[in-house]
This record gives sequence, C-alpha cells and structure tokens, in this order.
Amino acid sequence: MTDCAATANTRLEKDLLGTRPVPDLVYFGVHTLRAVENFRITATTIANYPDLIRALAQIKASAAQANHALGALDAAKKEAIVQACREIEAGQHHDHFVVDVIQGGAGTSTNMNANEVIANRALEILGHQRGQYGFLHPNEDVNLGQSTNDVYPTALKLAAYQGATRLLTALEYLQQAFDRKAHAFKDLLKMGRTQLQEAVPMTLGQEFAVYAGMIAKDRLCLTEAMQELCEINLGATAIGTGINTEPRYAELVTRLLSSNTGISLRSASDLILATQDCSAFVQLSGALKRIAVTLSKTCNDLRLLSSGPRAGIGEINLPPRQAGSSIMPGKVNPVIPEAVSQIAFEVFGNDVTVSFAAEAGQLQLNAFEPIIAHSLYKSLRHLQRGCMILADYCVDAITANPQRLADSVSNSIGLVTALNPLIGYTAATAIAKQAHETGKGVAELILEQGLLSADELAQALQPEQLIAPRASKTTEQTL
Amino acid sequence: MTDCAATANTRLEKDLLGTRPVPDLVYFGVHTLRAVENFRITATTIANYPDLIRALAQIKASAAQANHALGALDAAKKEAIVQACREIEAGQHHDHFVVDVIQGGAGTSTNMNANEVIANRALEILGHQRGQYGFLHPNEDVNLGQSTNDVYPTALKLAAYQGATRLLTALEYLQQAFDRKAHAFKDLLKMGRTQLQEAVPMTLGQEFAVYAGMIAKDRLCLTEAMQELCEINLGATAIGTGINTEPRYAELVTRLLSSNTGISLRSASDLILATQDCSAFVQLSGALKRIAVTLSKTCNDLRLLSSGPRAGIGEINLPPRQAGSSIMPGKVNPVIPEAVSQIAFEVFGNDVTVSFAAEAGQLQLNAFEPIIAHSLYKSLRHLQRGCMILADYCVDAITANPQRLADSVSNSIGLVTALNPLIGYTAATAIAKQAHETGKGVAELILEQGLLSADELAQALQPEQLIAPRASKTTEQTL
Amino acid sequence: MTDCAATANTRLEKDLLGTRPVPDLVYFGVHTLRAVENFRITATTIANYPDLIRALAQIKASAAQANHALGALDAAKKEAIVQACREIEAGQHHDHFVVDVIQGGAGTSTNMNANEVIANRALEILGHQRGQYGFLHPNEDVNLGQSTNDVYPTALKLAAYQGATRLLTALEYLQQAFDRKAHAFKDLLKMGRTQLQEAVPMTLGQEFAVYAGMIAKDRLCLTEAMQELCEINLGATAIGTGINTEPRYAELVTRLLSSNTGISLRSASDLILATQDCSAFVQLSGALKRIAVTLSKTCNDLRLLSSGPRAGIGEINLPPRQAGSSIMPGKVNPVIPEAVSQIAFEVFGNDVTVSFAAEAGQLQLNAFEPIIAHSLYKSLRHLQRGCMILADYCVDAITANPQRLADSVSNSIGLVTALNPLIGYTAATAIAKQAHETGKGVAELILEQGLLSADELAQALQPEQLIAPRASKTTEQTL
Amino acid sequence: MTDCAATANTRLEKDLLGTRPVPDLVYFGVHTLRAVENFRITATTIANYPDLIRALAQIKASAAQANHALGALDAAKKEAIVQACREIEAGQHHDHFVVDVIQGGAGTSTNMNANEVIANRALEILGHQRGQYGFLHPNEDVNLGQSTNDVYPTALKLAAYQGATRLLTALEYLQQAFDRKAHAFKDLLKMGRTQLQEAVPMTLGQEFAVYAGMIAKDRLCLTEAMQELCEINLGATAIGTGINTEPRYAELVTRLLSSNTGISLRSASDLILATQDCSAFVQLSGALKRIAVTLSKTCNDLRLLSSGPRAGIGEINLPPRQAGSSIMPGKVNPVIPEAVSQIAFEVFGNDVTVSFAAEAGQLQLNAFEPIIAHSLYKSLRHLQRGCMILADYCVDAITANPQRLADSVSNSIGLVTALNPLIGYTAATAIAKQAHETGKGVAELILEQGLLSADELAQALQPEQLIAPRASKTTEQTL
Repeated sequence: MTDCAATANTRLEKDLLGTRPVPDLVYFGVHTLRAVENFRITATTIANYPDLIRALAQIKASAAQANHALGALDAAKKEAIVQACREIEAGQHHDHFVVDVIQGGAGTSTNMNANEVIANRALEILGHQRGQYGFLHPNEDVNLGQSTNDVYPTALKLAAYQGATRLLTALEYLQQAFDRKAHAFKDLLKMGRTQLQEAVPMTLGQEFAVYAGMIAKDRLCLTEAMQELCEINLGATAIGTGINTEPRYAELVTRLLSSNTGISLRSASDLILATQDCSAFVQLSGALKRIAVTLSKTCNDLRLLSSGPRAGIGEINLPPRQAGSSIMPGKVNPVIPEAVSQIAFEVFGNDVTVSFAAEAGQLQLNAFEPIIAHSLYKSLRHLQRGCMILADYCVDAITANPQRLADSVSNSIGLVTALNPLIGYTAATAIAKQAHETGKGVAELILEQGLLSADELAQALQPEQLIAPRASKTTEQTL
Repeated sequence: MTDCAATANTRLEKDLLGTRPVPDLVYFGVHTLRAVENFRITATTIANYPDLIRALAQIKASAAQANHALGALDAAKKEAIVQACREIEAGQHHDHFVVDVIQGGAGTSTNMNANEVIANRALEILGHQRGQYGFLHPNEDVNLGQSTNDVYPTALKLAAYQGATRLLTALEYLQQAFDRKAHAFKDLLKMGRTQLQEAVPMTLGQEFAVYAGMIAKDRLCLTEAMQELCEINLGATAIGTGINTEPRYAELVTRLLSSNTGISLRSASDLILATQDCSAFVQLSGALKRIAVTLSKTCNDLRLLSSGPRAGIGEINLPPRQAGSSIMPGKVNPVIPEAVSQIAFEVFGNDVTVSFAAEAGQLQLNAFEPIIAHSLYKSLRHLQRGCMILADYCVDAITANPQRLADSVSNSIGLVTALNPLIGYTAATAIAKQAHETGKGVAELILEQGLLSADELAQALQPEQLIAPRASKTTEQTL
Repeated sequence: MTDCAATANTRLEKDLLGTRPVPDLVYFGVHTLRAVENFRITATTIANYPDLIRALAQIKASAAQANHALGALDAAKKEAIVQACREIEAGQHHDHFVVDVIQGGAGTSTNMNANEVIANRALEILGHQRGQYGFLHPNEDVNLGQSTNDVYPTALKLAAYQGATRLLTALEYLQQAFDRKAHAFKDLLKMGRTQLQEAVPMTLGQEFAVYAGMIAKDRLCLTEAMQELCEINLGATAIGTGINTEPRYAELVTRLLSSNTGISLRSASDLILATQDCSAFVQLSGALKRIAVTLSKTCNDLRLLSSGPRAGIGEINLPPRQAGSSIMPGKVNPVIPEAVSQIAFEVFGNDVTVSFAAEAGQLQLNAFEPIIAHSLYKSLRHLQRGCMILADYCVDAITANPQRLADSVSNSIGLVTALNPLIGYTAATAIAKQAHETGKGVAELILEQGLLSADELAQALQPEQLIAPRASKTTEQTL
Repeated sequence: MTDCAATANTRLEKDLLGTRPVPDLVYFGVHTLRAVENFRITATTIANYPDLIRALAQIKASAAQANHALGALDAAKKEAIVQACREIEAGQHHDHFVVDVIQGGAGTSTNMNANEVIANRALEILGHQRGQYGFLHPNEDVNLGQSTNDVYPTALKLAAYQGATRLLTALEYLQQAFDRKAHAFKDLLKMGRTQLQEAVPMTLGQEFAVYAGMIAKDRLCLTEAMQELCEINLGATAIGTGINTEPRYAELVTRLLSSNTGISLRSASDLILATQDCSAFVQLSGALKRIAVTLSKTCNDLRLLSSGPRAGIGEINLPPRQAGSSIMPGKVNPVIPEAVSQIAFEVFGNDVTVSFAAEAGQLQLNAFEPIIAHSLYKSLRHLQRGCMILADYCVDAITANPQRLADSVSNSIGLVTALNPLIGYTAATAIAKQAHETGKGVAELILEQGLLSADELAQALQPEQLIAPRASKTTEQTL
C-alpha cells in the first residue's frame, strides 16, 4: 500500500498534484491538507480568529442562497450548505479550520478549507459520506460563483468589522472610566507641565478629561475607517470581472450577506479595484495606530504622574495589582500601563507590516492579505483587551494625592505667568530667575520688591482665575 | 570690548541668559539667535516651508486684530503688526526665518522668530529702530494673548492644510491622466494576473481605470484627514487653560484667522486636549502613507507591465525619459515610476517618525512637533511632486503593445476558467494540466477531446463574455 | 466562607495585596495568579517559548549552585531546587508557566512564575506540601541573590541565543539548497535584468549563487549579533549595583550558567549598564530584519523568474505545492515564496516594535522587555520555518526552462553592450534604438550595416566572453 | 529656431532622445539636463552630499588610472581626467552636480552627472571646448570599464564610510563628556529607579557612566558595520559579470581607489552579488538605529532627571540655552535633549525607508539606492550633529542638586531591600507597606519594631554597602 491509498480510517481525495488519503474524521479535504503541510509556520491556525470563520460561513451561506435564487443551485444542496454554515457560525466546527494564519496563495487555502468543511458537513446532512463530492462539490457547489479573490477579502473585512466593533465598545468603556475620574478630580488644582517642567495651573480633573476626550476622537476615526470595510467585492470572482457569475449575482449576494450579518454592506462600484486594493485595511491599520498613540501617551502620563513613591511627581496613585519586584519588598509598579504601552508598540509594528504587505500587491491581486489580516486581528484584539484592563485594573482605582497637588501650585515658579498682564514678560522673567536661584516663592519676591500689593497678588492668584480665560479690567471696559 | 557688546553694526538684546549683540541687518532678535546657535543640525531653515511662515504671519495678524478688538492692543501697534504680517505673507522677509527645522523647545524658537521679525519690522513701520522693544515688544505685543503652545500647532495645521490642498490637486491631475488611458485602452483585451500568473481576461482599460479609481478613494481619505486640521487651539495659551486671555478671545481670533486664510477653522471644544494631542497629525500622516501605498503599488505595476523589452511582460511602453545606462546602449528604464516609489518609501519612513514623535508627548504638551511637521511637509511636497511627474512624464505617454496583449489571451491557459460552468472545475483542471505539460492551447485540447463543439467553444470565449458577468442559459430561463 | 479562604482543593497564599486561594494542582503561586488575572491579553502564555522556560530553569539552578558554594543556601535546598530545574529543562512542567507573553512589570511575573513553580516542586521533592514556603521560599531561596532585573534579561538572551542557533542552521540549509541549484544551472545562459529590463548575459547558475551568497553573509551578521547575547548581567540584582549579592557571586553564577548551558557567557563589565540597556536585542532585531530583506528580495525574484506561465518571464518553474485557485482550474501559484515574504513583512514590523520598546526604557530599567522578547522570538521562529519550507518545498524542486533562457539571450538588445569596446557607446546606442524600433536582432543589424564582420561578431558574442571579464587585444599586448 | 538648436550661449548635445541645447556655462551635459528635468522633487541636489561628490571623483580618477595601466586609456586623457577629478575632490565644481537626491534610474543620473562634469572639465584641460566629446567622451572615456551599477554603489559606500567616520568621532566626543560627568558625580548617592519608582541606591556617577558606556558599545557596532562598506564592486559593470572589463581591472582599480582614499577597500568575492545586494546599507542603517535608541533613551533620562524645577525629580540641572517659553517667564526647557530625540525619531523613520527600498530590489539590481543613500546620509549627519550639541550645549554644563539626591535616599522606602538578607523578603515587604501607608521612614519603622538594633541598621545602610556587592558574615566564613 502506498502513501496515497485510502485505509480503513482515511478516504482518498484528488487534486492537481494527485491522490491523497485524508483522515475520515476531518471535514476538511485534500486542499486543506496540502496547505497544512505547506505552511507549518506559526502553529496558530485560522480558527484562532473565530470572527473570520464565522464570516466565511456567512458568505458561503449567502452565496448558496443567491445561487439558488438565480437557479444555479438546487434547493437540497442550498439547504444543506446553509445548514452546515449555520453550524459553523454557531462555533461547532472551528477545529476543522486548520491552516496556518501565515499562508501563501492569497487566502486560497483558507477559502478551500471553508469549502471543504462545508461540503463534507453538507454531504453528511444530505446522507452521504464525506468525500463523495459527486453529490456536492467544494468548488463546484460551495464555491459556486465565487473565487478566493472575492470571498477572502470580504471575509477579512467582515471579521475586521466585528473586531473593530468590540474595540469601539472597549474604547467607550475606557473613556467613561476616565470621565468618572475627571469628575472626581475636578476641584484638585495642580501645576500643568510642558516639556516635563512646571508651567501654569490647571485641575487634575482637566487633565483626566483630556484622556477621555482623546479616546472620544479616536472612536470617531475608527468608526469612519469601519465604513470602508463595508464595501465588499463579492461577485468579483477571480479578478473582479465577475467571470462565471450572473449579472445580478453581485448585488444579490451582497444584499443577502447584509441580512445574514446585520451589517450594512455595499457592493464596490469597481469590483476589479476592490479585488486588488488593500486601502481599507491600510486605513484601518492607521486608525489602530492612532489609537495606540493615544493609549501609549496616556499610559506614559499615568506612569509619570504616579512616579515616586517619594522622589518623583507622585500626584496620583495607581492601584497596586501585584508585588512589584522579586527582590525589592513592597515595591509597586505601574504594571497595567506598562502592559498597555507594549500593546501599542506591537500595534506600531503591525502597522508597518500592513504597509509592507499592502505595498507589495501586484496587478490584479494582493497575495499578502493573510499577513495583513493576522496583523490587524492581533492589533484589534490586543487593543480591545488593553482598554479593558486599563479601565478595570487601573483607571477605576486611581486616587489623588491632594497635598502634593496643592504644594506643586503654591511652590511653583510658573505662577508668575499669571502676572504677565500686570507686570509684563520682562519683569516676570526676572522674578522667575530670582525664584529659581534663591529657592524663594514667586509671591514672596513680588511682595518683597513691591511689584504688586498683597491684595492685587491674592486677586491675581485666585485658583478660579488661573485655570480659564478671564476678563481683564481694560477689556471689561472696552466691550 | 566683550563678546556681548553692541558695535556699529549690531544692537544689544537681552534674554534670560544675558545680553547679546544682534546684527543690525536682521529682523530677528536674541531669542532667534540663541536658537540658531543651539540647533545647527540639518542646515535647513523653517523658511524652507513658506506655508509655515505664511501661517505664522496670518496667526499673528489675526491675534493683533483680536487683541485690538478686545481693547488689549492699541490701534497703532495693531496696524504696524498687521502690516508687517502682510509683508511676510507676501514673501518679503522669509530669509529672516532662520531657525533649523529640527529644534528643541516645542516650536518656541519658531514662534519667537516670528515674534521678533514682526516686532522689528513693525517698529520700523512705526518709525522706530529695530530692537527698541519699549515701543513694541515681541512677547508683550506680538505674542499678546498667545503662547508657542497654541500658535505653533495652529501654524503647523494651517501649513499642512495648504500642502494637502496642493496634493489633492496633484492627485486629481494624476487620476485624470490614468482615466484618459483607461479610455484609450478600453478595447484592448489582455490576461489579468494574480500572483504574477495569468488568470482570466480583462481589458487594459479596466486595468488603468483601477489606478484612477484608487486615487479617487485616496482623495476622499485625504479630504477627511484635512478636516481635523481645521480644529485649532488658538487661545489655549500655555497649556490650554487660556491663562492670560480674554474669555472671548479664542472664538474671536479663530473667526478672524478663518477670514484671513479663507479656511473654515473651528476652535477646539477642549483646548487643553487640543494643545497636547497630535492625533490630527497622526491621521494626516496615515492618509499620506495610504496614498504612498497606492502610488508605489501603481508604479510597481507600471514597471511590471512594461518589463522587457523582449523577455518580460512587455504589454505597455513607458516613454523614454533619459538614457537608461551609462554602459548599456539604448537601454530605457522606468525612471519615473522608480522615483515615485522612492518617494513612497520616504513617506513610509516619515510615518514611523511621526508615530514615534506623537507617542512621545508628555502631559500637557508634545515637545516633538517640529519633527512631526518636518516629516509631514516633506511627505506632502514630495508626494505632490511625484504625482505631477508621474502624470506628465510617464502616464500621459504610455502606449500599448496590442499584439502582445492579444497573444497573451489567445495563448492563455487561464481561459479554461470561462469553461467551468460548461465542463466543471475538475475537468477544467485536467485540461489546464495538459495544456501546461504539452504547450498546447486550451481550445485545441477541448476540441480534441470533444468536450465542447467548436460553436459552443467560440461562444464561450467571446471577448465580451469574458470580462463581465453574463447570464447562463439555465438562469435565463429561471428568472 | 470568603473569596480568600483555602478550600479542600486550594491552598492559601499571601502577597502584598492580601491572601488568596491558589488551586492545589498548580505549582505556581499567588504572584503568578495575580499576573494571570492582570494580563489577559494575547491568550498566549510564556510556555509558548520553551527556550525561555528552559533558560529560566538553567539560571535558577546555576544561582542555587552559586549560592550554595558561597554558603548562602544549604545543600538540601540547593539539591531540591536543582532537581526541580532539571525537570523543567526536560520539559516536564511547562504547562505551569502561565503568564501572558505581553505583561507589565518588566518580566517580574515571568520570574515569579519560575520562582514559584520551582519552589513548589522543590518543596515536594523535599517532602513538603506546595505552599509551605517556610521550608523553601520562592523569593528568599529560589530567587536568592537575584532580581527579575538580572534574571529576566539573562533568560531572554539565552532563549534568543537558542532560537538564533536554530535559525543559523536553517539558513545554512537554505543556502545549500540554493548552492545546489547554482551548480545545476551553471551552464544555462540567460539575460540578466536591471530595473526589470534586460541588461547583459549571465548564467542562471550565477543568479542562484547570489541567493546562496547573500545568506552566507547574513549568517555572519547573525553570528556577530549572537555574541552580544552572551554578555549577561546575572548578579546585577535590582539595578546593577549587585545589592544583596556576594562580591564573587556574579562571576561564579555566570561560570556555572555557561557550564549548564554549554554557551560561553560573559559577565558584563558594567552591570548597571547591562541591566538597563537593550542594545543587544536591538542589534539582534536588526540582524533579523536584514535576513528578512534578503529572503523577501529572493522570494520576489523567484516569483518574477517564474511568472507566466506563458506571458511572463517564465525562465524557471517552481514546483506546484497545491491547487492555486478555487475557481481557476490548473492555476499554480508561488505559494511558498509568498508565505516567506509575509514572514519577512512580519519581521519588519517586529523590528519597529523592538525599536519602540527599546527606546522607551527609562533610567535603570527597560520595563518593555516582554514585548521585545515576544517580537524577537516570533521573528526567529518564523524565519527559521520560512527557510526550511523555502528549501524543502520550493528551491529543491525548481526547474529551468532552457529554451526560454536561450531565447532571451539570442533575441536580446542588451547584447549590444558587449560590442561597446568594438563599435563605441554612441554607435551601439544607435543600433539598440533601431533594434527596438524594428524588432530586428542586434546581430542582424550589425551585419547589415557592416559594422563588424560575421567572424568578429561571432567572436564577440561567444557565451564565455559575455559572462566574465575578458582581455582585450590592446591590453593583451600591454601587460 | 527650434527648441533644440544651439545658441550663442548654448552647445548642442545628443542622447537617446535627440538633440538638446545645453548652457555653455555648465560642465554637465545632456544626460544630466534630462535628469534635472525629470526629477524636480526635493529641491535638494546631490551636491548637498559633498562626500558623495568626492567619492565619485576618487572613483573616476582611479578608473582612469587603472584603464591607463591596462592600456585602455591613453596618458593624455588619463591625466586630464585625473586632474579634473582632483579639482572636484578639492570642492571646486560641486555646484555642477545638480541632479535631485531622489531620482529614478538607480543612480545613472548621478553617475552621468559625474561623467559629464569630468569630461567637460578634462576637455578644457586638454584645450578643447566643452561638448567636444570626440576628443574625450563621458561614457567611452570617463566611464570606461564602468557602469552606474558598480560606480554608484561604490560611491555610496565611500561616502557613507566618511560620514560614519565623523559620527564615530562625535560619539567618542559625547562619550567623553558623559565620562567626565560620571567622574564628577561619583560620590553623589541617589536612589536608582526602575519603572519610574524608586528602587535601590546608586551614585549619580554610576548613572552617567552608563550613558558613556552605551555609546562605547555603539561605537563598536558602528565600526563593525563600516567594515562591510569597504567591500566594493568596482569592475562589476552592468550586473557583476564584469562585461567590458579586463580580468585584472577589478582588483587593480580597487587597489588604486584604496590608495586614493586612504580607506582599505576589498573587491567583493562575488561581484554579481555585490551589485544587487544592499545588505551593507541595511546593516549600517541598523547600526544607526541602534545609536538613535541609545541617544533617545539617554535624552529621555536627562529630561526625567531634570524634571521640575520643583515638583519633579529635579536631581540634575541642564544648562539653560534659551528662554523656554514665549509666555511663561523664566521657564527653562531641556531643548537640547528634545532636539536630539527628534533626530532619533527621524533615524527610526529613515531605517524603515531603507528597509522598504532594500527589500524592493529586483533581480540583478536595486533601483532604489538613491533613497537609501539619502536616508543614510541624513541619519549620519544629524546624529553626528546631535552628539556634538548634546555634549557641548548640555552634558558639559550639567550640575547636580546634592540635597535632593541625598533626600531621595534618606526618605526612600527602597532602602528596605538592603535589609532582605537580615530580616527576609516577607518582613521587609510588611515594613515597606507600612512606610508607604504612614509616610514614615524605613529606618524609623525597623527600630520601632525592634527588628534590628540601631548599630546593625547603621551598618546595613552605609552608603558603600549599598552600591556594590558585599560579603555577608556567613559567606565570609565559608570561603
């Protein structure tokens, strides 16, 4: 018996390369098997991305429905295919999706994996044996009117859309956590800092409101990027010309897929363009990079503001989440912000990977979409997790050190800025310099030198005066 | 005489560090001089970005007008400042903007350079000497109600907006060039290629229409990114609290600046956020990266399609622009696409630089905006130039090789795909394999084996049938 | 019963945050548990990197031996710790290493995971119960004389060294595959191409020899980068000052670890530097990026040279590895090179991640080493796999198309370059231009115009003359 | 008169595209003119890189000498060419090198620019008119035995070598500045920090020694990368086969070039490889990226350590270099470290550009070397400048705040780590927690609780005990 003979526990399947036994137990077939053997790279299979598997099932079901409606697929086959797809959507057969996330072939192996699992499960449903493709064929029936080159990008977009939707939720969740702190800290005056040097006063609440606000803006940007994911190329088949499809197929399958997914999808106006163009992924990656910039900047700030515990800025306390050191007793470290910054660094790298892969597209197809998808899905998932742990394990339990905040203001040289309108930039510079050299306070020096009266000074340095614009005497009269 | 004494040709100016002679001939003052000495890095001054200089002048003029309207600046000073700014806008004093494009200090040196040039020019207008700041002061008058931290980001955004506007025009120009070719080549049938292997037929016109279409989508994306540039933080002053401004100042100066620039600007709803957040630049950089991906992919395609002249794909000819080699006579190279791809590579790098700089922002300010601006302005300018030369020196003069295009179709194995609906994927695979092994044509083999009649085959392979969806017999009857 | 009470199947453990039940079944303890709860990010645990787990075990064993030799750890504890470590090295307890690969805390959780697993296993060996840390303590005994900040970077380096060693082997394997093809193809003349345009002749063997040669150079570079990994900071403890270690400890433990691993390790001359500096990782990442550039360039070439099958360059055939398309019968795609290029794109991204993380180090530590390690290990492993599949599934079975190669030369315009010394660059340019315009051959035109005799021409165009330098008549006489 | 007629002030030159007037005043010819017109991109000409122009001159002189020695070029021509080259080396004709730094054509325009300037200057030397190429021809004489494809990469390497040499000097200069501070600060005890939290004691001198030490290591790495630049491919001509060269030419010209440059160059063992491979540039870029990581990390540290002036870490003072703010009087910012970090960010981006360009090489050439060179030269130059200003304008004048340093130690909780060996990790953790909660000092708590006697404590906390390993009592007896 040769390598390529069926045994008790295998069935024989045939492809371009010849005949090959396939284990009876598996729903996938010879094409998937070849791919598994070819791409032993990451040890991570596409089943690691359940959104993608679900999207493939939704697409295949929609295609079967469209083909049936157009008279190209009989009812029995359609029913069986749709039922198999529904099972996959429900998560029943994910372990039969076994090709590596990094794969050559522009996603063909992923598409064939889906075709084969669905065909074999549908065969069972129809009362046949797995592998009896004469009754229902992975390519001729499940893949009918389709090509990897329209199915795969569409599935990638759907899965990315789902991941982005979850990320949006997590971003909002984190934004709310910051908003609550902004409210809680709204009366705590402190010195703002530019270039790590004390500048002028603000409240800690204002500081935290910015973290919330930046996320709000990022959410808008992500929402916009998601719109481009809704433009799909089903019906494009091999290169976008729609070869081997009915004229009505593209619109019909898009409508059915919208209905099956609940996402409002559009058929691209130029299917040839939509088949080769990866801009929607580049755009999404850019949006994720932007979110990563926000998160990392925010986490850096949290680490700076909580630096200490004694010889740092120490204005806030992050909740201890674990012992900070195996050797330094009682050390507490900002472990959650550190983790989130690392996610951001990963996302920056993923964005470069996406650029390389998108740029490498040639003529009517981009063969490198698998690594684009892998990169995007990691970014989406890790950012989503990062937002959740940052909210739950860090932001929610941040406390302020009121004394330290107050001291930073009363000791500050930067207060002198508020006196510019009264004593001028040049005089104020001299005061600041003296404060720096002598260690004295600004107020003390102003009074010593009789630049302002105690009353004028007190008036000028009232907290509510310092953290917002205020009408000057002159202009009060003018307008 | 010490280093720091005024001479016949110098005036003495004073800053935090002491007194220093400044050449009489220059409009800038001691702050600018310190910066010039500190940052001898690139030998490229900010005058290299005229949009930025103009934006600074527009901002300073608008601020003077607002301050005057609010009663904080008298009419004479306002007039002098505005006139000085108008001269700068007209390009008269750009050579007095001398600080390096890479500079520490978060743009303070750029802002002070503007303050000083405007103040000294205004002093002249008022009949005073340069340096007689008692009459009109760079900080107390020109910078009145302002800080680097609101002026500089606003100026960066205005300048980026102008650069992006020019890029939009260039993109449209290039799109039109591709559109013209799409029209000219609309009847030339060829084989589409996926993964560098012949796939199924299309027209050369369809291929070029994609290049136009991708640019059209990129333009939309750029237009969206530009919207975020219109949200500015003038009135934020040092950290966004608006210290030392009138309550009405922010809205008023934004309105005046809109009017002075013709750009519809908005005052950010959270000025503290807007002062530290670089997301608008990250977003713009992402859009430019996306454009670079499109251009580089397109240029790669042009190089592939014109590869040869004899032993390559050779379906199109790029116009010769120069001798291709110093040793190989008559060699013609795709020099324009090569140049444009290099611009794209530069943009990819610039995008990484922007990410690093944006991520490095701390607390109430990002001190690294100068390198963000430098990176963005290079990207904007080079992409704009790249589009123009690609259109003018390459796309416009591309010609097709009709014989080669036709041969690619008639010899092609990929034609067999069109027969799937008639003979099935499995039989078609066998035919393809035989064609590959024997070198015979698909049609020849089909007829030899009697799989289809000559009529059926001719019908199936009609060009118009191959490049678009078509109704099958079955489905014609069904629906 | 509260959340924090031991039950039948749990034991109680205590840390900075309080008391917490830990499942009896697990070797890890409360510190690990906190980390698992904190860092639910990637769903990938550090056990995914067996080299890292082994390295931790080797370090802990070496430390125990050193501590014992220095009188700080008694023999029984030492023996138990060493035995537990040996079991881990043998792969017995990897599933107890459960913290996420992305983690805050600068690796503390990884180190504590090791301390706890070893302590509990050692307790068992000593006849105690898990959790009875009074007999042998994770921090006070297993971590004795250590800190995360010396253990963790050392473990990262050891694991990277192992991964790099395997990559070296794979690179050599791939190099040999190319070398065999270089030999097999050594007599096949073809046109070399620059800028995708035919240039001058060479052999296909020369072309493949370059692929081998580039890998050979990359191997040297990787070997150099590995040297830096051998400089470790064990004995540095918290920040490199060696607090809580014996003066002889650092050298001793390094010697023992060398012996336990078979790698020739050195103690860094400045342990404070070695504790915070990530340059060795940056260097390794740079070497991997370089390898990725080589592999991707090589794979691009293989795809170009095999483009076709009919209307491309088509000079070589890559072995079919799977059906190329779900819709296009018989299509064969370069799936292996495509997979390897994607690995390269991932490595480029990982390198950016490493740069971000390394740059973010602050003062005496880099808290972002976990993402550095994660990035490097993925790059190392995927590159290693990429080399193997490229050799086994692609290069080994590449065949040449001799007719096409020969035609490329005989039809070529580039041949005219060889005639420069005989007819001059200017005349040669004219011939090339005519060849291009008329479609005629260079030889034909030369003879037609009587520029050379048939004999002279034949002599000038002998293959052996074209692919290497040759003595001219003039210079034969001169020297 | 047509566009293409010579006028009084022009001469007519001819190329592949036809005849074109060239201004009499310029040394360059028609090929350069075409390139100038084609590549109006950056407005930066190659003359901006004088090292490159000098390298081209050195190569052309060496080639003329080699050709003469081999009998292929007569003495008069050789002499004239060599003299023209010497003039260029001396900087006399740099303004005739006018092609854009971003250019298509793989450097052909740069090479032709050199050929033409040298030819026309040599013609003058020989008593002819510019443009009388019958007497001495840019391609046939100046470019004799050469191709852009060997000249250009060789010139790039030479210029990079020169830039790297200057960078090495600057790095050493900066290292010495840090070393001086390390010495000056060697007795100032302070708390080391990990993860921005106080850890254990060290000296400020130790901290600065690390900055010096990291640079020392980077210098080694750069020196290694420079070695690869010394392997050149002169004699390779078009693709590396050495077509149109004498067998002895490659070695001879390499020897002469070594002598003319004073750099010890080697002829690559595989010239075909060396013609297409960009690994030496990738390696150099990687080394520069590594240096950038070091510099940016160092600058971040300087900014952190000098944060304040009052409510930050404030352990050191950076010298004021300019007024820090246009609105905040007396504010002093870390402008030099900020500038240097921005250089680092630019270098990170340039490294990505280099990766993209190197990866895009195809078959026998990389057409994207111009952008590689542009990126590398910017990185080299800006890093060199960054080192100098960091040393001169910042490090040299850094002062310490002894009181603050001392306070950080005496107040520190981290001191408890030193007591681990005496009281154990668990007890020490409890003390740390109490210190944190009560604000009390560690020593105070230890004494209160009678964990150690005052004597034992004083002994344990002696500064010299804290910043280096120390023998314990136990182990003193043991060994």
